[in-house]
Amino acid sequence: MSFPLRRVPVAEFERVLMDLDDAHDRTRAFASLTRINTLYMVTRAGSGHLGSSFSACDVVCHLLLNELSEPFSTQGDVYFSSKGHDVPSLYAALTGLGQLPEEQLHRLRRLGGLPGHPDVGTPHMPFNTGSLGMGVSKAKGLILADRLLGRARRVFVMMGDGELQEGQVWESLGGAARHRMSELTLVVDHNKIQSDTWVRDVADLGDLQGRFESYGWGVLRCDGNDVEALAKTFALRAEQFPDAPAVLIADTVKGAGCATFAATSMPDDEWRYRFHSGAPADEHYLAAHQELVASAESVLETAGLPPLRLVDEEPRATAPPSGRRLPEVYGEVLLERAADDPRIVALDADLVLDTGLVPFSRTYPERFVEFGIAEQDMVSAAGGLAAGGLLPFVHSFSCFLHARPNEQIYNNATEGRRVVYVGSLAGLLPAGPGHSHQAVRDVSAVGAVPGLVVLEPANADEVEAAVDFCLTARESVYLRLVSAPVPPESARIPAQPLQLGRGRTVREGGRTMAVGSGPVALGQLLRAAALLEADGIDLRVVNLPWLNRVDVDWLAQLAAEADTLLVVENHYTHGGQADTVARALLEAGLPRLPAFHGLGLTEVPVCGTEEEALRAHGLSAGQLADRVRTLTAARTH
Amino acid sequence: MSFPLRRVPVAEFERVLMDLDDAHDRTRAFASLTRINTLYMVTRAGSGHLGSSFSACDVVCHLLLNELSEPFSTQGDVYFSSKGHDVPSLYAALTGLGQLPEEQLHRLRRLGGLPGHPDVGTPHMPFNTGSLGMGVSKAKGLILADRLLGRARRVFVMMGDGELQEGQVWESLGGAARHRMSELTLVVDHNKIQSDTWVRDVADLGDLQGRFESYGWGVLRCDGNDVEALAKTFALRAEQFPDAPAVLIADTVKGAGCATFAATSMPDDEWRYRFHSGAPADEHYLAAHQELVASAESVLETAGLPPLRLVDEEPRATAPPSGRRLPEVYGEVLLERAADDPRIVALDADLVLDTGLVPFSRTYPERFVEFGIAEQDMVSAAGGLAAGGLLPFVHSFSCFLHARPNEQIYNNATEGRRVVYVGSLAGLLPAGPGHSHQAVRDVSAVGAVPGLVVLEPANADEVEAAVDFCLTARESVYLRLVSAPVPPESARIPAQPLQLGRGRTVREGGRTMAVGSGPVALGQLLRAAALLEADGIDLRVVNLPWLNRVDVDWLAQLAAEADTLLVVENHYTHGGQADTVARALLEAGLPRLPAFHGLGLTEVPVCGTEEEALRAHGLSAGQLADRVRTLTAARTH
Repeated sequence: MSFPLRRVPVAEFERVLMDLDDAHDRTRAFASLTRINTLYMVTRAGSGHLGSSFSACDVVCHLLLNELSEPFSTQGDVYFSSKGHDVPSLYAALTGLGQLPEEQLHRLRRLGGLPGHPDVGTPHMPFNTGSLGMGVSKAKGLILADRLLGRARRVFVMMGDGELQEGQVWESLGGAARHRMSELTLVVDHNKIQSDTWVRDVADLGDLQGRFESYGWGVLRCDGNDVEALAKTFALRAEQFPDAPAVLIADTVKGAGCATFAATSMPDDEWRYRFHSGAPADEHYLAAHQELVASAESVLETAGLPPLRLVDEEPRATAPPSGRRLPEVYGEVLLERAADDPRIVALDADLVLDTGLVPFSRTYPERFVEFGIAEQDMVSAAGGLAAGGLLPFVHSFSCFLHARPNEQIYNNATEGRRVVYVGSLAGLLPAGPGHSHQAVRDVSAVGAVPGLVVLEPANADEVEAAVDFCLTARESVYLRLVSAPVPPESARIPAQPLQLGRGRTVREGGRTMAVGSGPVALGQLLRAAALLEADGIDLRVVNLPWLNRVDVDWLAQLAAEADTLLVVENHYTHGGQADTVARALLEAGLPRLPAFHGLGLTEVPVCGTEEEALRAHGLSAGQLADRVRTLTAARTH
Repeated sequence: MSFPLRRVPVAEFERVLMDLDDAHDRTRAFASLTRINTLYMVTRAGSGHLGSSFSACDVVCHLLLNELSEPFSTQGDVYFSSKGHDVPSLYAALTGLGQLPEEQLHRLRRLGGLPGHPDVGTPHMPFNTGSLGMGVSKAKGLILADRLLGRARRVFVMMGDGELQEGQVWESLGGAARHRMSELTLVVDHNKIQSDTWVRDVADLGDLQGRFESYGWGVLRCDGNDVEALAKTFALRAEQFPDAPAVLIADTVKGAGCATFAATSMPDDEWRYRFHSGAPADEHYLAAHQELVASAESVLETAGLPPLRLVDEEPRATAPPSGRRLPEVYGEVLLERAADDPRIVALDADLVLDTGLVPFSRTYPERFVEFGIAEQDMVSAAGGLAAGGLLPFVHSFSCFLHARPNEQIYNNATEGRRVVYVGSLAGLLPAGPGHSHQAVRDVSAVGAVPGLVVLEPANADEVEAAVDFCLTARESVYLRLVSAPVPPESARIPAQPLQLGRGRTVREGGRTMAVGSGPVALGQLLRAAALLEADGIDLRVVNLPWLNRVDVDWLAQLAAEADTLLVVENHYTHGGQADTVARALLEAGLPRLPAFHGLGLTEVPVCGTEEEALRAHGLSAGQLADRVRTLTAARTH
């Protein structure tokens, strides 16, 4: 990108608020400025959710400007988004209102900046969201606390329409009605498109109004991108439902505000909405920016005000390398194996693109089942498919797959069913989306499930071997797939057949040894080994792709060749590979044990670039090399 | 109990089926005999769910006798109960049909007998249920497999009305309609009472019919204890909804079939239905038995058939000791502390009795929040309460609490909220309910949650200390409460203040040492130590109530005093205390390490008596003593 990015300075938001007399014009213009800066933020960050930020933007601006009472005081009305990925437009609006520092506009998804999903560390974010379906539950808790402590305020929650597929939403509604929570207003950003495609094609919402009413909720509905309609409809809320929680079904357009991103511009034969996540291409950025500026200026012009003054910022950084990612490789391997193995069926929870399943779903539509954002349903249905004689491969992001259907995974295991769970986006990286999407607890949370092996392949070749293991093993498998780009050091690791519990040396070396798995840990370790060569330290690096199993004989042999054994994990230090290795080492009754150290995450993962996140958690190659130097020195003295 | 228990021999079921000409009479009489044997089984077992078994009994008998096509062939129609705790009447009916061995009637909830909740190891149990809300999902998977493999059969699923509170149910409905699953019929046993009390008082179902219809399901409704009405209504199913899944809302009475157990007999001022679980008292057994026999004989008499011939069986075993259990103690301590600490609020998921919360809920109704069977909602609401400034104590059985809201627990942790999770019914015992209710994976599944300490008190005194720790700690706490009776050895362990990560010796001894926590592991270890005295082995027993933390200095000191260190866990061997201790021992860099062994469950827990279950998993005192003998001998040689 050779042209500058443009944004709206805060002073211009102030001018709009001061100089526009008509409330609706003010909101409209404010929303346009908010969209311009949202586009700037996401483009600069290189990732983020434009479609949702834009569809929800008018509701957010209306609430902040016109509806909420003292929204920035600790006692005032509360707004938060349960879906969370629409937060860029909230950040942009808050910045426009002087509630977030202006310089944070440049730091979306950066360490110390504005996280990819809301985090309570950011001002005016009452909850961590992005783990879907929790919003009404959290609001209920807050309202119950308010009532006990004598506080009176209202709580407004934004949910996505795809998010309504999560069972927790339907757990949470009844209690709000029973407690007559008139303080609570839910807004459904009904833009009709979820992560992959149209909601109606994924898991139709049926009679949405009737469904809410059956739980005792009041229901309002209006055009959610029309600020006048929003104002009128919110005005009815208290009067129409003085004694009950209410939902406003806001009919919106995904990407609303400019034709470039608006779902209404999609060709009829296109199934995929292209602006759900990720930064726009140059031409889309330019077109959308121009549209949004024109839209703001038309309001200003009509009101007789001077045109918009924008600020030029430096061009965005180069996009990250866009080579093949492991989920894509995985999808191709699965497709190929499916031709010869009719047992294979693939189950998905609204992530057909991100889990590499597009080719499979197109080639074998009858063997592909879309569950929508309903991981518990998907996993139990996998149990049913296995009971019926098939071999289900179950897909989601690992952050959701290990946790949301945790009891369902265990239930399948108690039946002895063979199921393959494929969790992509595993581990610390990419660190831009933030902790709701960083799966660094998955090994621990499913590691004790009987008959379930957790396996993390390091590169494309190992993905292929892993799929073949899944097809032939006696065990169920949790396949931990890193979605971040595979570093060249890991990509070069040569293929070898997988043997349960056994690893192999991927860099020969001396008696100082490091064990790890997957592209991230091994990539950093191999870089560290290269750095250490200068110090005359010859680090041996071992790839152990099994995260909750280790073969004792293999380990004993390894330990006999080590003075120091370091285990590096792309996971919390607790409950992962280091625990498994340490326990096995100690129980093996060896005559001599190496010095042992495990490294991994000890804190909730940070949001940031890859390098920022690795450094923040002490897992970058340089830091690992330092650690090895210290350990080696301690051993020598 | 000094009188014999009576049951119906299989020959009498056969006679009823042969000699009664009228189909409805046949079903009625068969259901009466089924109830008699259900009562026998539960009374003999000393525990089980009568209320639900009786409310669902007529539906079950109608389906098996009149509705299902070839239900006992592998290709025939399928029936299973998603709630699962109504399985005693299904067992009784299957036995009456010759589909289960008659002698199994004596072995409900015994090792090698009939598990407390359905298990696929028992004939005609297609799924493991009792973990609620999974039924429709599993049925959908089975139907998808049938379609792919060219099988045509129908699937009937029973659900409880309380079970409908689980979010997964509402995740699962849409897909069944989208796939036009006319093969699928759901029966809701709408007996209006869930575990604790009336459904309407826990989480009202609202407009139930409208709710199902909003998902595109066909809805039928009838008296579910009237076999004639059932026959008529099932006959309409295919015709009325030829192209859609359908639900039959069966209006039933909990405990239907005899006035003794029927909820309709409850006094107006009684909030608690007394026959949800547990064996009946002698007088209730006798009264109910008499009623049920009279009911069967009236059908026989009207048809001109000879009266019922019953078999006398030996009196039931003495009931287990009914001393105070830890949840009861816990509830009293919480009540007492709440008087001085207004931050305390208690959240419950339909287990107010079993979690010891009755006194708290009566004394502080405004600080007690009932969520129904909706653990995800409850845990996220706890996050909201904590955000609002209170200290929520969240309650359920540990089997559900660690798993169903696993992602919600983590989300609260990422916000840094202080929440106390209290999981009762923790561990292997009681083993009668079976693996859906045996929480032996909880430490592993939440152990890596940042800032969350897992703590298991060994007796009443330690429960009190644990609650005080929860009130003052900086961490969130997962309190693992064993509900089985505390063995005297554990009850005698003297109270000491809790120090995070540190244990204390509860039996002095030599350099052979065993570490454990909680009443079960410590009770067996202290018994083992007594057994070992005769061999001159002086086993030192250490109580380490912290399951995912250990203080390294304390552990180093302990290790210095040990030649052999055994860790015994009321949990799977993976991901619990032994892993934590082993890792810390190895990382401590000690000059000398003791021989280390961890013992715990390596298989899915069995159903049975306490003694049967401990023995099956090698955790009885005698087996532990044997293990110590072997280890000591190995060390000496």
